Amino acid sequence: MIVRTLAELAAELDGDVVGDGSTLIHGVAGIREAMPGDITFLANTRYESYLTETRASAVICSREPRFAAIPLLRVENPYLAFQRVVRVFRPDPYRAALGMHPTAVVSPQATIGPESSIGAHCVIEAGASIGARAVLLPGCYVGPLAAIGEDTFLYANVVVREECVIGARCILHPGVVVGSDGFGFAFDAGRYHKVPQVGNVEVGDDVEIGANTTIDRATTDCTRIGDGTKIDNLVQIGHNVVIGKHCIIVAQVGISGSTQLEDFVTLGGQAGLIGHIRIGERAMVGARSGVTKSIPAGEVWTGYPAAPHGLWKRLTAMVQKLPQLFQRARALEERVERLERQKQPEEVR
Amino acid sequence: MIVRTLAELAAELDGDVVGDGSTLIHGVAGIREAMPGDITFLANTRYESYLTETRASAVICSREPRFAAIPLLRVENPYLAFQRVVRVFRPDPYRAALGMHPTAVVSPQATIGPESSIGAHCVIEAGASIGARAVLLPGCYVGPLAAIGEDTFLYANVVVREECVIGARCILHPGVVVGSDGFGFAFDAGRYHKVPQVGNVEVGDDVEIGANTTIDRATTDCTRIGDGTKIDNLVQIGHNVVIGKHCIIVAQVGISGSTQLEDFVTLGGQAGLIGHIRIGERAMVGARSGVTKSIPAGEVWTGYPAAPHGLWKRLTAMVQKLPQLFQRARALEERVERLERQKQPEEVR
Amino acid sequence: MIVRTLAELAAELDGDVVGDGSTLIHGVAGIREAMPGDITFLANTRYESYLTETRASAVICSREPRFAAIPLLRVENPYLAFQRVVRVFRPDPYRAALGMHPTAVVSPQATIGPESSIGAHCVIEAGASIGARAVLLPGCYVGPLAAIGEDTFLYANVVVREECVIGARCILHPGVVVGSDGFGFAFDAGRYHKVPQVGNVEVGDDVEIGANTTIDRATTDCTRIGDGTKIDNLVQIGHNVVIGKHCIIVAQVGISGSTQLEDFVTLGGQAGLIGHIRIGERAMVGARSGVTKSIPAGEVWTGYPAAPHGLWKRLTAMVQKLPQLFQRARALEERVERLERQKQPEEVR
Repeated sequence: MIVRTLAELAAELDGDVVGDGSTLIHGVAGIREAMPGDITFLANTRYESYLTETRASAVICSREPRFAAIPLLRVENPYLAFQRVVRVFRPDPYRAALGMHPTAVVSPQATIGPESSIGAHCVIEAGASIGARAVLLPGCYVGPLAAIGEDTFLYANVVVREECVIGARCILHPGVVVGSDGFGFAFDAGRYHKVPQVGNVEVGDDVEIGANTTIDRATTDCTRIGDGTKIDNLVQIGHNVVIGKHCIIVAQVGISGSTQLEDFVTLGGQAGLIGHIRIGERAMVGARSGVTKSIPAGEVWTGYPAAPHGLWKRLTAMVQKLPQLFQRARALEERVERLERQKQPEEVR
Repeated sequence: MIVRTLAELAAELDGDVVGDGSTLIHGVAGIREAMPGDITFLANTRYESYLTETRASAVICSREPRFAAIPLLRVENPYLAFQRVVRVFRPDPYRAALGMHPTAVVSPQATIGPESSIGAHCVIEAGASIGARAVLLPGCYVGPLAAIGEDTFLYANVVVREECVIGARCILHPGVVVGSDGFGFAFDAGRYHKVPQVGNVEVGDDVEIGANTTIDRATTDCTRIGDGTKIDNLVQIGHNVVIGKHCIIVAQVGISGSTQLEDFVTLGGQAGLIGHIRIGERAMVGARSGVTKSIPAGEVWTGYPAAPHGLWKRLTAMVQKLPQLFQRARALEERVERLERQKQPEEVR
Repeated sequence: MIVRTLAELAAELDGDVVGDGSTLIHGVAGIREAMPGDITFLANTRYESYLTETRASAVICSREPRFAAIPLLRVENPYLAFQRVVRVFRPDPYRAALGMHPTAVVSPQATIGPESSIGAHCVIEAGASIGARAVLLPGCYVGPLAAIGEDTFLYANVVVREECVIGARCILHPGVVVGSDGFGFAFDAGRYHKVPQVGNVEVGDDVEIGANTTIDRATTDCTRIGDGTKIDNLVQIGHNVVIGKHCIIVAQVGISGSTQLEDFVTLGGQAGLIGHIRIGERAMVGARSGVTKSIPAGEVWTGYPAAPHGLWKRLTAMVQKLPQLFQRARALEERVERLERQKQPEEVR
């Protein structure tokens, strides 16, 4: 068991202790699930009320909460501190065996980096390269001429098709598909003809791609995912999409062909973007929004068709007030009718 | 060929025959596709019109339909009776071979229950356990310390990551991913840092999980799916979500982190739920709804932002009537203008 | 390197050259990415402005653009011509090895067509048949009695469950699941009972199915996909759905059980269709629409609940104008109040 005093943790995390620094900590947990000996964290004020009832022995927070019966570890960014403290108490216990599993099928024309791990039943085709210290869990497929960067981790059953390139230190979760054909068909003579998709996908460094997410290869040229971008599960990224650095794409988003995201863009869950538009740097798209035109840098858009968030909120509030508006129209009609009736005698008079 | 008289079926299903109980039945089919010798069923009144043209030899229904040229088998719950009758005429013809396929890679530190079936190219890591009579079709991956319950069935290419627990009698369809990392990143110094996801997923008994559905492991603690819950295809369930017993989650739903569903909740297809909310017992969410706050027990909510179903219907109907409302406003403006014009001379008089 | 003169390409594509027919072309690329020696294409007028800055040596287009400093290749259908020209310069360099990989597990009761390719770690069960020249990349699973047509191509990790039939010349992208159980449960005595799904899926010829898309088998009878239909990634198709010929189904669409699409239907991305409805021939459904009733042939519907596109546009525009409408109501109320106040003295007079 790993044990630290709260004071020791504070030193590691560059934070301050409020309360007993000698408190012993041996685990980390959510505020509702924590047990004595655990440290927990408070990043979201909506959980502040749980502070009075948590069984945790200490809490990481950014400012002193109104009530707290337990010692505090004050830091600037509690979620970041939590991220570090998790690894203190829960170092990753699993290490894939180095080398190639005997059931893996690796082309003699593939290049396999040192200290890499190729799991059972993996297939690596001719001309593919696997970077140093990369890990492929069982059942992964790496197509001809594809490249997996150094220290990149592929969970089970990931598919990276031919010529696609994955950077260094990426994480691809189970079932990810990189390099499937873009959806392009030319209609002629009563049927659709497949437009060959001969481009590829290039994924930068430090990218994470969620389970069963699909990223299509470009028709010609390249579908790109920038360094540091994090993609959640079941996301669809169309052909020739270009995504900048450090973007956040939440689950079940769909991005149509040739759309571009600049750096630090955030897309909320289940949002959909049409093709051929551009989302400016640091723009945010609300969950479930349907984006039909380009969004300027820094703006927050929501709804369908997506509009600036403030406008969308106003419109949504007004739709909620439609019953009153219909009543007001009815009342106005009655009042005007009454006025008109009073008027008429005057006129005929 | 399996053959029964209608009277024999009625006895098995605890129902009544209306018509000729000696009618011979040897198959089961939908009302439009049925052929002579088939029994069909009528659960949805919208199909009642097909009763006059079906070629079926008998029909399972709950009350006597207005027209029916064929014998009836009356039961309380026709869909339930249909469920039973399917298995009478179509017993499952496939049985996975017992034991481990020679191409499976099973850790000597894994525990494999009696009468289980481990298909070709499966991988079972150290410390994992497979319950008695469980079946893993080819290409499944069960990570370190994961547990698969008794009589549970994994179709091809299912991934259950380390430490996750699947109960008894569950069915996981092809491509399911259980235990992928939750989507959590702390932003600092211009980039996102991964928050280690060190919790797990615990799936209860009698749960069904649809093809290519993804269930994320908890950050710390546990993502839970309660007994008897049925999940359709391509659903995304975020980290630390807690789902009660006997819930129904239709295809392409997304549930964000830490949200809770009490028992018997139903979520319609493509609905999305934000994180940290609670859906009360027996509540229902309409298809495509976007739920942004907690829903009290027993209520039906629809729309985006989701609202009580009756209110949503009213608002939707009012939006449809906006063209008239705009016309009424125009008409009112003209009438008021006319009144004002008539007024003015009076005032100057 | 493959090189052609523009005149040679024009002859192959049945088009006219405007400009220097001796221009040498050795590649094909998008209008923004093209380099000297490339031919590009202009199908979408929104890209016309790029014509002045492209580095391409020629452009395929349907009519003479206003500005173009480079030679043109005029054809009737530029996208179709592009489709052909891609294959001129980028013939598919990959050919799967014929025969069965030694790690494939193929039942002696399966039928394997001539010149087919069964990749590493594939599993083909008893009674299944693989057509002539079909290709299965590694990790595919073909269940008992399933059939894969001639010249059909399965990318890595595709699952086709028992008794399902895939036609000729189809393409199934990685992670596709065909024949997962339909989502059907009968509620009784406080829990859901699984309705056995004993039908199958039949996919016609020349069908393409995108990565990680799931198609459920019928309860009884058959889920059908017609010839020439193209389905994008992460689409969900429910049990007993019947899809006609030459339909286009864009990514993340969900189609509920027993719904029917006639021929040449187009469904935009992320659209959802309830069960038991019928979409008429050549009808189109806009992206993100929620379709709650049948659509007549040839119509274009959008929104949720989906309505004819023109009506939806009008309603959407009116919602945007709600702020003005509320102001107009306020102004009317004030004017009427003023009128009423002026009136009163008259009345008491």
